[in-house]
Amino acid sequence: MNSDRLLKQIEFIVEIDKLKNVYRKSVLMDKSRLENDAEHTWHLSVMAILLLEHANEPDLDLLRVLKMLLIHDLVEIDAGDTFAYDEKGHEDKYERELSAARRLFGLLPEDQRDEFFALWREFEDRQSPESQYAAALDRLQPMLHNYYTQGYSWQKHGITSDKVLNYNRHMQQGSEELWSFAQQLIHSAVAKGYLKEKE
Amino acid sequence: MNSDRLLKQIEFIVEIDKLKNVYRKSVLMDKSRLENDAEHTWHLSVMAILLLEHANEPDLDLLRVLKMLLIHDLVEIDAGDTFAYDEKGHEDKYERELSAARRLFGLLPEDQRDEFFALWREFEDRQSPESQYAAALDRLQPMLHNYYTQGYSWQKHGITSDKVLNYNRHMQQGSEELWSFAQQLIHSAVAKGYLKEKE
Repeated sequence: MNSDRLLKQIEFIVEIDKLKNVYRKSVLMDKSRLENDAEHTWHLSVMAILLLEHANEPDLDLLRVLKMLLIHDLVEIDAGDTFAYDEKGHEDKYERELSAARRLFGLLPEDQRDEFFALWREFEDRQSPESQYAAALDRLQPMLHNYYTQGYSWQKHGITSDKVLNYNRHMQQGSEELWSFAQQLIHSAVAKGYLKEKE
Repeated sequence: MNSDRLLKQIEFIVEIDKLKNVYRKSVLMDKSRLENDAEHTWHLSVMAILLLEHANEPDLDLLRVLKMLLIHDLVEIDAGDTFAYDEKGHEDKYERELSAARRLFGLLPEDQRDEFFALWREFEDRQSPESQYAAALDRLQPMLHNYYTQGYSWQKHGITSDKVLNYNRHMQQGSEELWSFAQQLIHSAVAKGYLKEKE
């Protein structure tokens, strides 16, 4: 009892509390404050359950999708949130996140360290149906936040519709249906004045 | 495309954003502010993956555990968070939460409404190995928050160790090992002066 193994797991559980203080560029739908990564991750995970029928491969392994989503942003505890449209920030994003993954997952017993590291890599690589679906949700959620706050973050950061379309296009690998919905959301946002077209 | 079904799902996804504004009695481990239900739910879900080997029935259905956890607090959007040691608040808790479940899950397509309602009931009833394990985690997480903030919420609300032991005893239905760990945590909290014994 209270094996070294359980103590390592508890240490990790305590450490990842910090994800609740990693703030994103999205605001909550009531615009009261910025959203943090822990909340974002919870929201995505519920979406994964609800929207599974819209995945290109609806027979995919939902448990692996949820595992991937639940840990995909942990690296941001050390590496910080890199804004979608920050080109400079993306240059060294992988290196920063790799160091973070090594430190954080390294707190765990070896088998769980390896499992979490593999899940994180799978999510980042977007080669499996599970990771492609997970990534589509990770793009749809902030779009919903933008749309239902009348383009709050798009406007604040001067983002145009061509950038939104380009950055999120890979959604179609995970779900043609959700990508089609997202495109309609983007066009509607332009029509309503929430999002500017390219000048 | 953009079926009535998808629009209902999106409406639900937008509605449940409110969980991020339901604050609990726990503070974050850095004591910077109160924790909200969405963050708490995310934290529990990662714990469910990591601590599965300590469940009394480690062969249980982890996907159902995660589904249950991810939606278990949604009713608090309408019903509010009822503090663990608020006896008066617990008197009408079930009625308030039942109304909330009907309204919120009622936004979904019928099959998903029924699935979510059944998951919520299963969690509340604590009869299945999955719900007993999920409930054990739901009790362990706030105890960790209390312990690692030197008893912040216990002290603020004048909670004594006998109440903590009594309220959380059902943890053993889901995990004897985690309950044993929790009891050691409580005894250690008393020894360190984080938690008072009954006068």
